[in-house]
Amino acid sequence: MHAIPEGRVVHPDVPLTVVQGPLATAQILETSLLNHLNYQTLIATKAARIKDSGRGQTLIEFGLRRAQDKGANAGARAALIGGADFTSNVGISHVLGYPPKGTHAHSMVQVFMVLGEGELEAFRAYADLYPDDCLLLVDTVDTLQSGVPNAIRVFEELRRKGHEPLGIRLDSGDLAYLSIQAAKMLDDAGFPDVSIVLSNQLDELVIWQITTQIQQEAPRYAVDPDRLIRRLVYGVGTRLITSQGQSALDGVYKLTAVCHEEEWLPAIKISENPDKILNPGHKCVWRIYDDRGKATADLLSLDDEKPDEMTQPLVLRHPTDRTKYRTLQPSGVSKVTPLLVEILREGKLAYNLPSIEEIRKRRDADLDALDPGVRRLINPHIYHVSLTEKLWNLKQGMIESATSGVTSEAKLRPEG
Amino acid sequence: MHAIPEGRVVHPDVPLTVVQGPLATAQILETSLLNHLNYQTLIATKAARIKDSGRGQTLIEFGLRRAQDKGANAGARAALIGGADFTSNVGISHVLGYPPKGTHAHSMVQVFMVLGEGELEAFRAYADLYPDDCLLLVDTVDTLQSGVPNAIRVFEELRRKGHEPLGIRLDSGDLAYLSIQAAKMLDDAGFPDVSIVLSNQLDELVIWQITTQIQQEAPRYAVDPDRLIRRLVYGVGTRLITSQGQSALDGVYKLTAVCHEEEWLPAIKISENPDKILNPGHKCVWRIYDDRGKATADLLSLDDEKPDEMTQPLVLRHPTDRTKYRTLQPSGVSKVTPLLVEILREGKLAYNLPSIEEIRKRRDADLDALDPGVRRLINPHIYHVSLTEKLWNLKQGMIESATSGVTSEAKLRPEG
Repeated sequence: MHAIPEGRVVHPDVPLTVVQGPLATAQILETSLLNHLNYQTLIATKAARIKDSGRGQTLIEFGLRRAQDKGANAGARAALIGGADFTSNVGISHVLGYPPKGTHAHSMVQVFMVLGEGELEAFRAYADLYPDDCLLLVDTVDTLQSGVPNAIRVFEELRRKGHEPLGIRLDSGDLAYLSIQAAKMLDDAGFPDVSIVLSNQLDELVIWQITTQIQQEAPRYAVDPDRLIRRLVYGVGTRLITSQGQSALDGVYKLTAVCHEEEWLPAIKISENPDKILNPGHKCVWRIYDDRGKATADLLSLDDEKPDEMTQPLVLRHPTDRTKYRTLQPSGVSKVTPLLVEILREGKLAYNLPSIEEIRKRRDADLDALDPGVRRLINPHIYHVSLTEKLWNLKQGMIESATSGVTSEAKLRPEG
Repeated sequence: MHAIPEGRVVHPDVPLTVVQGPLATAQILETSLLNHLNYQTLIATKAARIKDSGRGQTLIEFGLRRAQDKGANAGARAALIGGADFTSNVGISHVLGYPPKGTHAHSMVQVFMVLGEGELEAFRAYADLYPDDCLLLVDTVDTLQSGVPNAIRVFEELRRKGHEPLGIRLDSGDLAYLSIQAAKMLDDAGFPDVSIVLSNQLDELVIWQITTQIQQEAPRYAVDPDRLIRRLVYGVGTRLITSQGQSALDGVYKLTAVCHEEEWLPAIKISENPDKILNPGHKCVWRIYDDRGKATADLLSLDDEKPDEMTQPLVLRHPTDRTKYRTLQPSGVSKVTPLLVEILREGKLAYNLPSIEEIRKRRDADLDALDPGVRRLINPHIYHVSLTEKLWNLKQGMIESATSGVTSEAKLRPEG
């Protein structure tokens, strides 16, 4: 956050949004901007992780019933940007121009059962209504003994009438085991291409376990694991829309410089927690690509620095740890690109808002530029967000002068 | 969910909401009702836990910047119902008629520092503007060496002008240690009653640790721990509004009975997961109070049962585990009260919507009726939600007949 008379919001992907404006105006933006950026960035990231773990198979966002009241819509949109292909949220689907996707409910089958007609008749009724869109939920009674055999009978009837079924959905039980068995039954019945939709408390780790287990176990049952994995579709609700395990992104909004008599004066806030000491000054942010073309770090610099000129080796400093730095030689760097893009100027949009499809293309390119190590689901390599030597020196000098004269309790007491 | 021609929504506190209506209408309500009930019940519960851990001290909801987009408002309202006294969310505070509460930002102090005027002048400027509402954030430079001494100077100046300060806020560092030291300095300076507001990634466990540590450590510094704890105020943001650690309440919406030719026919859904097998039939729910007047269980019964008559010992069955049941003698039961309250009838409100204050009184009474064991923060005794013998027998019979003829893979394979 910068305080200058002229209003401006500059927003890169990561890790810095710059707001310039009169102090009071910029302050009023704080909570609203954080509310929008933190939650939606979090959910887009979670969706990207889940999509990754499903090896690129279709991902449907299913979270509306567990979402945070009206936040569901922003969450579903963020999921569509980050990795979901569709959502079962009908309202936001229509607003954004995507078809909503889902299946019938258990209650449909139950009503037929209560009235003495059974699961098979329920499936037939559904197939009659949606002959070209027939996806059957097969776990209301017993997946392998009732649901899948009944689905296959209805699929055969559909085919005789000239229609091809879409697939089945498994919503309980051991999804790895059941999907192998269901795949075998569908293969044997002549439906090797219908989808198998999986749901029930899925997230990136559960999906990773399921696909790993299919890879190991399917051959025992004479099922080709790769072909099975390519027919899977994932419906992910609760754990996507709430980002279970990491339910908030802790982005903050800090005063880092004040423009006084046409000069940018850097501001700092000291804290007992080193991670909460902000990076001072009027700054820019850059992405550095290595000689493989992979993004190797994002770099915060002061506004008057030109790290993209690479006239000398580039020193990347860890934001808080003096002992951690690395030096990049010009020969090891293929590209240094600025990340800040102007969004608002004097209250008016200065940016062509991209469509979801355009944002998805950008997402794919950005994800491709990441090393597999930083995309690992568990214990990933930490992507570096570094400071230039000049910014590091400014920060250290300001910490020294802000705390000179006071003896910090942080110096007196070991870290708590 | 019951399917009868007449629309009706009946909603108790826990653990059952009954929706009666034409099948399609009742189905359309599903997602909206779950969206509202799941999230808000979750946040009200989290707020109650946090309020408990703070020993009833004032709790302010601080989560808007980390909340799930527009879900923030429903979350703040739920927090106000469950345990928060105020929220920093200005909009919803005004809608609900509560004053919003917060403190000044670090940026206010930073601007004074950048312009060479320092923290003391920042505090003075704030005290000039809000002489009777002066609460100072003391951790921008160094809490004990700069923030608290400067606050005390400004408090003394205020008092000389005839105003009493409200307090200080600690937002980083070791909050137990810093609050003891700050309390001592404020005591020594003649401000033994001003509040000490704590914030920074608080939740019920962090607060519990802080108060426990104050209880142990404060006497070493000649600070009365009980008096210190009674001057604390908690500002809880991220971990309250996202219910960190349990980011969703997994309430579901199930078809349990169909009214056919004026008769209620129970419906069931079998599942590979026993916990996902629903409790069938047209049901009621009751709360049973023991001879101490404490709530000892909630009991699901069929609609035609009268467990409140206590004409014979009451058998409470665990919903899924055949081996777990208990028998209550009439002499051990002080009261059995029905929990269902009619909310909607034929699309019209049939209920006087209570004010937040009325809901809070109800909350206090309900919480007082719980045994301390079930309110324990970690590893609590599980409050029983049981089935009557008649409902248990109906459920078992339906499971048997639904799975007869099919051989469940659940029977063939041990639990995964």
